[in-house]
Amino acid sequence: MVIPELKIIGVVGIGEIRCGDELSKLIFQAIQKQGSCLEDQDILVVTQKIVSKAEGKIVNLSSVKPGKFATDFSMKNGRDSRLVQLVLDNSKSIIRIDEDSGTIISETFHGFICANAGIDSSNISGDEYVSLLPDNPDKSAFEIRTKFKEIGKNISVIISDTFGRPWREGHVNFAIGISGMNPFIDYRGTYDSFGKELKSTQIAIADEIAAASEIVMGKSEGIPVAIVRGYDFDFDNSDQLGKSMLRKQSKDLFR
Amino acid sequence: MVIPELKIIGVVGIGEIRCGDELSKLIFQAIQKQGSCLEDQDILVVTQKIVSKAEGKIVNLSSVKPGKFATDFSMKNGRDSRLVQLVLDNSKSIIRIDEDSGTIISETFHGFICANAGIDSSNISGDEYVSLLPDNPDKSAFEIRTKFKEIGKNISVIISDTFGRPWREGHVNFAIGISGMNPFIDYRGTYDSFGKELKSTQIAIADEIAAASEIVMGKSEGIPVAIVRGYDFDFDNSDQLGKSMLRKQSKDLFR
Repeated sequence: MVIPELKIIGVVGIGEIRCGDELSKLIFQAIQKQGSCLEDQDILVVTQKIVSKAEGKIVNLSSVKPGKFATDFSMKNGRDSRLVQLVLDNSKSIIRIDEDSGTIISETFHGFICANAGIDSSNISGDEYVSLLPDNPDKSAFEIRTKFKEIGKNISVIISDTFGRPWREGHVNFAIGISGMNPFIDYRGTYDSFGKELKSTQIAIADEIAAASEIVMGKSEGIPVAIVRGYDFDFDNSDQLGKSMLRKQSKDLFR
Repeated sequence: MVIPELKIIGVVGIGEIRCGDELSKLIFQAIQKQGSCLEDQDILVVTQKIVSKAEGKIVNLSSVKPGKFATDFSMKNGRDSRLVQLVLDNSKSIIRIDEDSGTIISETFHGFICANAGIDSSNISGDEYVSLLPDNPDKSAFEIRTKFKEIGKNISVIISDTFGRPWREGHVNFAIGISGMNPFIDYRGTYDSFGKELKSTQIAIADEIAAASEIVMGKSEGIPVAIVRGYDFDFDNSDQLGKSMLRKQSKDLFR
């Protein structure tokens, strides 16, 4: 029997990303510089933060004018009313709001449910600047993948971000944008080692790969990209793969 | 700069586990047989299923007498009323119940929120048999770790299981029992590359490691154990580490 082995390699030395930078080029240079390589069937996991920077999704808070709700809300908990306004502007519905702590859990216009609509100030130059999520993370993944394809690298790409979740402490990395691979392994209709049909298991493998990558990335050490090698994914050229991981509310018994 | 690299090695050939089997011994033999090894600071991830088998947490449904609720509920959706009774018996509260599909989301007596109280019939010999979760997965992890310590292997152990979750399609692996490692990386109070203090990020690294392991395990291929190498965890000898990952309801804004 073959011994399955997965390798996750952090990519260092990518440096600070600016609006308009060609991410794929900078990532490839960094991979070469550290003596690593890209193989067919590798998965490149890229954190949302550098994608947002390259796509210009950085906002200067001084450009945001808080409305009445944001102003009143912020008075109760000392949050920055401009940030609150930006969270509201980037949400299509509010799931939960805690006036004391100032926490807002909302559904972003993409459909992600998270704190503060995924807006974040960490690892961004300047106290007044925050990053928004990319407009279309599936498209961002597709664009990076396409550039690699042009130089003969047949990989898939995941854009990842760190999310809190119900019931469990701590944040984990999820896949918010995907290009090139089936995000799921569907065991429904297959059989276990005793010949019993598996009825319900569908593994969110893209989320597990995003989670795995986070282990080598860390938060502040300049490792915004990882290469995942050894998972033999099914190629999938659909264009809304990250979006397909969002469960419809009507189907969501956990809600 | 050091290039961070994580390796995840599946352990094959462990064979069918029976009640009373000494798991650590069988795992170690399988690791040696496939030519792998265990190094200090390795993390051994063990799926719940073989722990439950070794601990005798297998139930013959014919031994379960369904009560009135289970009988009535099953009439509406064709589920096995004995299984429904077993789910109720292993739950301390019901979160959501869907009469049409027969799905029950409940909180187990451990505090895990999941479908069917973690009861599962896959990969178990015999149509009438199902597995329950281990009584105390932290203790199960501790016992395996202790045995490895006795033969000079200073590792940590995670017991994992696959869970559905709100908002997102598909299941992912989580850590339900942990021994030897801090399950979190706490960035709160540390600084990012721009000197900004990180205020809220606490990574559930044990869940990410459990998720990563699932990638090499699969559902029906007889790989119930993985070795995770390259994450330099903080040793922690506390005895309720898996339990510490459960968020108190009062603190859970997502609920």
